[in-house]
Amino acid sequence: MGYNALLERMGEVNDLLCSVSMLSWDARVMMPPGGADTRARQMATLKVFARNHLVSDETRRLLDAAEAETASLPDDSVERTICAQVREAIDYHLRIPAELVQRRAEMGSKGQHIWAKARAESDFAAFAPVLKATLELNREMAECIGYERHPYDALMYRFEPGESVASLQPLFAALREGILPLLRAIEEKPHPRVDFLERPYPTDKQLAFALDMARALGYDTHRGRLDLTVHPFEISFTRNDVRITTRVNGEWMPKGLFGTLHEAGHAMYEQYCDPAYTRTPLATDLVGLYAVGGVSFGAHESQSRLFENQVGRSREFWELNYGALHDTFPDELAGIDVETFWRAINRVRPGLIRVESDELTYDFHIMLRVDLEAALIDGSLKVADLPEAWNAKMKEYLGLDVPNDRLGVLQDVHWSSGQVGTFCNYTIGNVMAGQLFAEAKTDPDVSRGLAEANYVPLREWMTEHVHRHGRRYTREQLLERATGRGLDPAPYVDYLTTKYSAIYDL
Amino acid sequence: MGYNALLERMGEVNDLLCSVSMLSWDARVMMPPGGADTRARQMATLKVFARNHLVSDETRRLLDAAEAETASLPDDSVERTICAQVREAIDYHLRIPAELVQRRAEMGSKGQHIWAKARAESDFAAFAPVLKATLELNREMAECIGYERHPYDALMYRFEPGESVASLQPLFAALREGILPLLRAIEEKPHPRVDFLERPYPTDKQLAFALDMARALGYDTHRGRLDLTVHPFEISFTRNDVRITTRVNGEWMPKGLFGTLHEAGHAMYEQYCDPAYTRTPLATDLVGLYAVGGVSFGAHESQSRLFENQVGRSREFWELNYGALHDTFPDELAGIDVETFWRAINRVRPGLIRVESDELTYDFHIMLRVDLEAALIDGSLKVADLPEAWNAKMKEYLGLDVPNDRLGVLQDVHWSSGQVGTFCNYTIGNVMAGQLFAEAKTDPDVSRGLAEANYVPLREWMTEHVHRHGRRYTREQLLERATGRGLDPAPYVDYLTTKYSAIYDL
Repeated sequence: MGYNALLERMGEVNDLLCSVSMLSWDARVMMPPGGADTRARQMATLKVFARNHLVSDETRRLLDAAEAETASLPDDSVERTICAQVREAIDYHLRIPAELVQRRAEMGSKGQHIWAKARAESDFAAFAPVLKATLELNREMAECIGYERHPYDALMYRFEPGESVASLQPLFAALREGILPLLRAIEEKPHPRVDFLERPYPTDKQLAFALDMARALGYDTHRGRLDLTVHPFEISFTRNDVRITTRVNGEWMPKGLFGTLHEAGHAMYEQYCDPAYTRTPLATDLVGLYAVGGVSFGAHESQSRLFENQVGRSREFWELNYGALHDTFPDELAGIDVETFWRAINRVRPGLIRVESDELTYDFHIMLRVDLEAALIDGSLKVADLPEAWNAKMKEYLGLDVPNDRLGVLQDVHWSSGQVGTFCNYTIGNVMAGQLFAEAKTDPDVSRGLAEANYVPLREWMTEHVHRHGRRYTREQLLERATGRGLDPAPYVDYLTTKYSAIYDL
Repeated sequence: MGYNALLERMGEVNDLLCSVSMLSWDARVMMPPGGADTRARQMATLKVFARNHLVSDETRRLLDAAEAETASLPDDSVERTICAQVREAIDYHLRIPAELVQRRAEMGSKGQHIWAKARAESDFAAFAPVLKATLELNREMAECIGYERHPYDALMYRFEPGESVASLQPLFAALREGILPLLRAIEEKPHPRVDFLERPYPTDKQLAFALDMARALGYDTHRGRLDLTVHPFEISFTRNDVRITTRVNGEWMPKGLFGTLHEAGHAMYEQYCDPAYTRTPLATDLVGLYAVGGVSFGAHESQSRLFENQVGRSREFWELNYGALHDTFPDELAGIDVETFWRAINRVRPGLIRVESDELTYDFHIMLRVDLEAALIDGSLKVADLPEAWNAKMKEYLGLDVPNDRLGVLQDVHWSSGQVGTFCNYTIGNVMAGQLFAEAKTDPDVSRGLAEANYVPLREWMTEHVHRHGRRYTREQLLERATGRGLDPAPYVDYLTTKYSAIYDL
């Protein structure tokens, strides 16, 4: 009875957190402007209820009983995994004083206003006090959470459990070693033609085509929907309702299309979780207090990047689907063949802005941020010296001069909302996608499917090896079960080398 | 400190209930079909949390402290009113066992499936067991809630506090006496022409025009939005976000337009509540566990009916606004003058279906239901005898023969979801609207405004006398403050007599 009662209680926590996500979706997609203030209060209240319900005496009593009841089961049984996760999450939350959570939330809402103004005016000095306070607060958080070697490790725990400054170093080194030579070689090559993408395409046709492609890849619209927003995102309220948004851009057509495939990749991770895990801790991030089934932010990003880039921007994909795109936009794409289109959507152009960067330069934006964040947190880099350090890295990695802080250190919203430690997931996602996709393609059904524009076997492979497990295994366990080893950058570097050598005739 | 702490706690209850409403809006307007099951769980969980938070030991401790702290204030002070309402709501919920609430909720979801099938097949016998169980459950509820004279009084308490079977009798008698002669007289008269309304009008133009009119009446779209749904409704998540929906019908154009004005009337009650009452019990139905600022369902209906019928279907309104409608639909309304249009939208035609009935016959559908419900609850009418009793009343009031139960006793969803006691509000709303509108028009600013298509003074009058008070006063107190007396059917009967005498040349 203890275990089942614990599950029911965790179901209530999931209900509360799914409701927070629902309110958040509405706030970003549907809400009239006047609703913002009271909506923020409602979301904050539900989140506090979820946290308090999780750490309550009654939950802990049920957890004790559940642990006793399941003590004789194997360590890796679902039951004991769930008990261990609930225990871990309760310990985590009890280590962080409510007062600190409160201060962090308050800082988030204040900081964003100051940041937005500072960014608009490219005035780092105006933002520096917010950043200092954010770092101080995150250092406090790190001390509460605990860590072995580096306080930044504690901050990554919520997003990428098990990752550390130490474990990221060899990964980053391998990426630099593998990708920088490609970038240098491409610098010498002529740019592909992209002019035909730099114009408006009718919005409704773009959306309809993007949704068709997302469906073909496996996104289930019986349990989802696509809307337009300024900032695209994916969000779920159990696997039964997983929504995505995209942005349509008059200056760069691929934005809406690949944005949709990206979010659809995230969405499928949620949609194809084992239905038996619905409302359980295996579909709830009890540490981050977020209703999500993916095991880490990096694992989640592996699915979005895989479907957006490694499938969606592949030559094979467009050889099979370009006809449909051309039929949809016969005027806009008049005279453009599939080869020209494929090169254009994979154009490499080092730029200053992370969210606009291409597949080959993206990881450098991440490495730069992770290294600087870790140095800021351990105090080896002072806030006052940050812009200079940022600009030096930009020069080193991408050969670019940063003309002002608006296009440099002030570009991201993260720090202004009090968040530190979230950046590594993007690169881990890329690497993991490369590893999973290479493995998946060794399955004859998957590779035959890809050659026939039948994406069901690929989606099923991902469901079998990734989606269905929800939070049952750690990211490393998941990778070991799927590919026989932990995170390994080699397949990702191979993939980039092969692909960009072909595009740029290296 | 006790009072402020109590207010903050009630703010959390409001946050939870606003979130339930948000989830409900989404479920009815945006949700993909797959999301239904888990959404229902989420809403149920939030509602249980709201109820438990309200009746918790901590709330009761704070309430004791708040009562002590505010003991020296006047009885009718905001502070003591709030304390009394919280006390009353806690007492109400503690009288109803959780097990009974649970059974009622379960019956609701099961009953609706059985009802839908029974209605489709016009098979009352198949629905009878559900109705029997519903009545049994509601009798249990009535015993828990308590009443002085009739168990039905206890069931109306949630929707129309203070109303009773005894108090409704003279009201209904006055309405029958006032309206039946009009109906009988109209039977002898020729029908107005309505053919030009019985065809499709372009949906987007209908919506745009309806929203323009709703805005003109005072609906604030900075804090609201209009969507299309099968069943129109109004819902709010604090006064800062009050949404309406409407239905566009290819067979009867007035549906979408007047549906919008109806829901806009509801919405304004919420939007113009005193901002100081936001998140307080004066904007929360703590008994019904519903985030609503109106003091009773009848009071709420007074605002929807006033703006839909008494303003929106008046000759004066169309003399000023028909030009704009005609400009919007020049082909559809070609050759139709304002007089013809106004008569058409006020066409009287006794029919079997409540939700399709006109202003003059509507109250008979209500009286029929209230009388039968009360008799079913006190046992003087048996379920088996219900269809016959229904059909006899239909004949008596509207002169109609009911050909089958689908068009008779099986038409409403209410009983299948376990609800008894909700019908009287509609008629109380009509009566109250007549009383308030007559009083408002004695204000020269209001009547001058109406004559100039300036609806601001009317809306401001309603805000001053109704909206801003939220749940501060009882319905009867509100009426006494606004009109010098309690609910009085005379102005409503006068209004109907004058209007329909003009339309039908009586």
